Amino acid sequence: MTPIADCATEPSPWSPREAELLAATLQLLQENGYERLTVDAVAATAKASKATVYRRWPSKGELVLAAFIEGCRQAAVHPNTGSLREDLLALGEAITAHATKHSATVRAVMVEVSRDPALREAMQHQFLDQRKALIESVLRQAVGRGEIQAAAISDELWDLLPGYLIFRSVMPTRPPTMKTVQAFVDNVIIPSLTRPLA
Amino acid sequence: MTPIADCATEPSPWSPREAELLAATLQLLQENGYERLTVDAVAATAKASKATVYRRWPSKGELVLAAFIEGCRQAAVHPNTGSLREDLLALGEAITAHATKHSATVRAVMVEVSRDPALREAMQHQFLDQRKALIESVLRQAVGRGEIQAAAISDELWDLLPGYLIFRSVMPTRPPTMKTVQAFVDNVIIPSLTRPLA
Repeated sequence: MTPIADCATEPSPWSPREAELLAATLQLLQENGYERLTVDAVAATAKASKATVYRRWPSKGELVLAAFIEGCRQAAVHPNTGSLREDLLALGEAITAHATKHSATVRAVMVEVSRDPALREAMQHQFLDQRKALIESVLRQAVGRGEIQAAAISDELWDLLPGYLIFRSVMPTRPPTMKTVQAFVDNVIIPSLTRPLA
Repeated sequence: MTPIADCATEPSPWSPREAELLAATLQLLQENGYERLTVDAVAATAKASKATVYRRWPSKGELVLAAFIEGCRQAAVHPNTGSLREDLLALGEAITAHATKHSATVRAVMVEVSRDPALREAMQHQFLDQRKALIESVLRQAVGRGEIQAAAISDELWDLLPGYLIFRSVMPTRPPTMKTVQAFVDNVIIPSLTRPLA
């Protein structure tokens, strides 16, 4: 499947140099995990001074969350295929590929964010709000095409598609595959969005 | 809602003394989190020697996984209300209550299990296999009553109900509520299980 999708259309909040430091952080997280990540190694990998890293991200939690969010921003797809099913498959495949590759980072972010209200706030405003708007936009387009009714969209469950796929990615026993995405979209998400409404 | 449910009908693999040590571990995890958990504190809380704890669970990862699994076993409901919807609501409510209360432990287990293949194996055989059998039993009863068709049950997505609710519990921004469970069961799970089949 080749979805018609624009990648990374949200503007980056970072300078090119900052983006390099975050990319180095994400790469080290993927290679060595969260526990072994040090600001020294990030600075060395990106050929920067430790002071440069600390000035921008004073704690390891802030650095890791920023790297995670920037990685997701760059990997995000904004599908606009003209079909709800194809849009959902494109979103689900992108989420699965990214969350599986960066599962150690996702687990670390969940732990760090749970410990620190400021990180929680950052996660909400710099990440979740945008993801929610993206999914709502895909669903509103489907309403516009007459594929689903507006009343079928649930604010309570807006993150069902990413949520279950991320759960599968961070549970190390059964990482999700393209088969998972297809079964989820065809047998769960679309039947839910097209269910008979009272 | 008062589900007709049997609690903790699976036999415990632990002696009463071992179960006390695991209960002390779970309590300390809930109070202080994973990082600050020490075998010293577990032994002191349960009035045991450190050697007793180490003899049974040689690593912190093994101790925490065993405490998590035993806590889930004790909190597990085996609903048999005669209605698929009521059974799913009872399961969803029990999962939500337990995962929200023990969210720090769930995050720690995800990290520990990802690091250690032996813990992954234990998680699979001592926990996930039983959860899968429980959910399959609820769905098979619904097939027997003619509420759903056997072909609607997906092996690929057997953990959708617990998976999304656990995702919501470990994401610290929006813990699930009874409203979440009801919307999930009524607007997602049941429409999926009763969808038209090809």
